[in-house]
Amino acid sequence: MITTKFGNRIKQIRLSKGISQEKFALSIEMDRTYYASVENGKRNISIVNIEKIAKGLEVPLEELFKGI
Amino acid sequence: MITTKFGNRIKQIRLSKGISQEKFALSIEMDRTYYASVENGKRNISIVNIEKIAKGLEVPLEELFKGI
Repeated sequence: MITTKFGNRIKQIRLSKGISQEKFALSIEMDRTYYASVENGKRNISIVNIEKIAKGLEVPLEELFKGI
Repeated sequence: MITTKFGNRIKQIRLSKGISQEKFALSIEMDRTYYASVENGKRNISIVNIEKIAKGLEVPLEELFKGI
């Protein structure tokens, strides 16, 4: 599923930056529980929130889809 | 706005393939009016529908975000 692949990908990038899920969600003003469910592949996330995550991770949008 | 940039990008790829909006929407089983509004940057499209468009355009997902 695309939602699972996307969740794994952003988790991988977040971990590579050594940021906790909680700290990251806070930094992009996203509900922590919602963000956790995105990483777990449980949300059909929208493009506006995808962009928010890319900005928070400081990577180009396309980077989030690499290898997916 | 990300929705506008995304709409322009998929329109550009669709046109480069010489497919009409109507034909393309039909090929991916997406409502034609909905698809048109995505190209016009009027929809906060979800990842499941973004993937559907990438498959229909026969490009990797990341390609849809190149230069955005």
